[in-house]
Amino acid sequence: MPYIDAFNHFFPKRFYDMLLETPAGQKDMGKRVRGLPAIYDLDVRNKVVDKFEKYDYSQILCLGMPAIDRLVGPEQAVEMAKIGNDGLADICAKDPARYPGWAASLPMNAPEAAVREVERAVKIGACAIQLHTNVDGAPLDEPQFWPIFEAIEKSGKPILLHPIRTNEMADYRNEKKSKYEINSVIGWPFETGACLARLVFSGIIDKHPGLKIITHHLGGIIPYFEGRVGHSWDQLGARTSDEDYGAILKRLKKRPFDYFKDFYGDTALAGAKGPTVCGIGFFGVDHVLFASDCPFDPEKGTMYPRLSIEVMETIDLPKADKEKIQYKNAQKMFGLK
Amino acid sequence: MPYIDAFNHFFPKRFYDMLLETPAGQKDMGKRVRGLPAIYDLDVRNKVVDKFEKYDYSQILCLGMPAIDRLVGPEQAVEMAKIGNDGLADICAKDPARYPGWAASLPMNAPEAAVREVERAVKIGACAIQLHTNVDGAPLDEPQFWPIFEAIEKSGKPILLHPIRTNEMADYRNEKKSKYEINSVIGWPFETGACLARLVFSGIIDKHPGLKIITHHLGGIIPYFEGRVGHSWDQLGARTSDEDYGAILKRLKKRPFDYFKDFYGDTALAGAKGPTVCGIGFFGVDHVLFASDCPFDPEKGTMYPRLSIEVMETIDLPKADKEKIQYKNAQKMFGLK
Repeated sequence: MPYIDAFNHFFPKRFYDMLLETPAGQKDMGKRVRGLPAIYDLDVRNKVVDKFEKYDYSQILCLGMPAIDRLVGPEQAVEMAKIGNDGLADICAKDPARYPGWAASLPMNAPEAAVREVERAVKIGACAIQLHTNVDGAPLDEPQFWPIFEAIEKSGKPILLHPIRTNEMADYRNEKKSKYEINSVIGWPFETGACLARLVFSGIIDKHPGLKIITHHLGGIIPYFEGRVGHSWDQLGARTSDEDYGAILKRLKKRPFDYFKDFYGDTALAGAKGPTVCGIGFFGVDHVLFASDCPFDPEKGTMYPRLSIEVMETIDLPKADKEKIQYKNAQKMFGLK
Repeated sequence: MPYIDAFNHFFPKRFYDMLLETPAGQKDMGKRVRGLPAIYDLDVRNKVVDKFEKYDYSQILCLGMPAIDRLVGPEQAVEMAKIGNDGLADICAKDPARYPGWAASLPMNAPEAAVREVERAVKIGACAIQLHTNVDGAPLDEPQFWPIFEAIEKSGKPILLHPIRTNEMADYRNEKKSKYEINSVIGWPFETGACLARLVFSGIIDKHPGLKIITHHLGGIIPYFEGRVGHSWDQLGARTSDEDYGAILKRLKKRPFDYFKDFYGDTALAGAKGPTVCGIGFFGVDHVLFASDCPFDPEKGTMYPRLSIEVMETIDLPKADKEKIQYKNAQKMFGLK
């Protein structure tokens, strides 16, 4: 039974060269990326993928962090997105056995160009669109982003939703930034939940019911807190008095909880089995896709695919359900053969 | 088999009256609290507890939100904490069948007085100390709070750790506060994780290994992200270059992951069974205590106890393990007979 790994990161050569020339690339970020060859060296990456040959394993690719809008201004972002997307298209076209598909990145700080890039990317073969949970600190439900959701819905492609916290945002008022990497380790999964809530309560999902949103890390904070997501948001407005949140509940087409259940999640939980069971219980087997988040692990690429496969190999699920999670949902959503 | 509900909220009469006279109490907060009789009216609360008589059900009490340090300045906080604690002591002394124990609150904005209140409260019968995850925006690992942890360790009593986000902190840079109650619904569980991380990486836990910290909502964001908690924090420093986080890893006495596993959690997950199974898998049956977070539910008191009991009644665990979670761990940690 094959594995299609739905959410992984790679920088194609030309994009990688540009990345290193951005201000961030010339400093810490560049140093960190250089230390992770599997994210920019295709030979190294091929070897990672080939380690799992006996599982008939392949990867959907998308660009890695940071989001393009954090790296450069709007004009350059438009150019970089095209170069990144062309590069991924090229890799997948040449080696569909290892890389059966790719997700496009958008110049989100140039929203009109982002709409055009959705259309262009799908034409050259993108099987999904990668979005980050905010655009350099702006939440995705701001009005300038709505046409992008419209274009994505029209394309029929799913969104791969990647967490990113607002730039160096502090966890505490008297500090300038998050400490101890709290931000990336557990702030990101919170951010995924916050983004989904904004998409629901702003009305974007009601306006574009065709959107299929695949959340990285199996829904972020949402599934473990399904109780609060259900019962607390049923009482939206009970804890607030300066905004008329009651009106939002009335306007929504269904119970808040049901919107969250209708999202999708990937299994990129760094090989944690109990949480994977919990997340599958929340989304259901038709809304979960296998993924490993390669190559961001302590072994620089092989560990998370290995652990994530191990979870699926030992999880107590009927074969038909495993098939869906391992590859059938991916084939269907990404339009793969 | 009895149920001891480990984490619940109540305002004793004198404290409640003072609360309504604070600036927040005279505005929205007061209005909200008044709408929830089971949190201040002992007759109403008794009826809630009696609904679960057939389960031999009782509640450990502590004050409700907001934390005292958000309500009044240091001097008044010292007074209010005493009045709140005296009130809880009185209720429990008079009705130990319904309320076998209570957790003390501290005037955290007056740290020296807080140390004295730990000692005083334990003398008059407190079986635990309730702390919030930050003090009006200051993280718990700031130096002024360390003597409080020392005093609590010395008392031998466990900490009940309640989440609270920094005052009206926004999720996004261009907004003034969190929207759609994202803060209280899913920001709180993130905050629990952030607080635990600070306690670990600051060295407080190494300095006070006797501290027993019971996290509300079964560990907050931590258990579902045990994979990231493990593998990402094993690489602490890999994503940062302006601070020497590598030195922290060397200084810690064990793997970061193991500190998180050594905390405790309560089952207050609003009746969500899959997540409860996930959280018990993370902490282990010796580190989980039954709790419902009464009376904060849509039925104003009866729903979360009912749903939380239902989870335990139907969960697939050996009887001896259920006993630990339902009451034996609580008896032991709170020193109940």
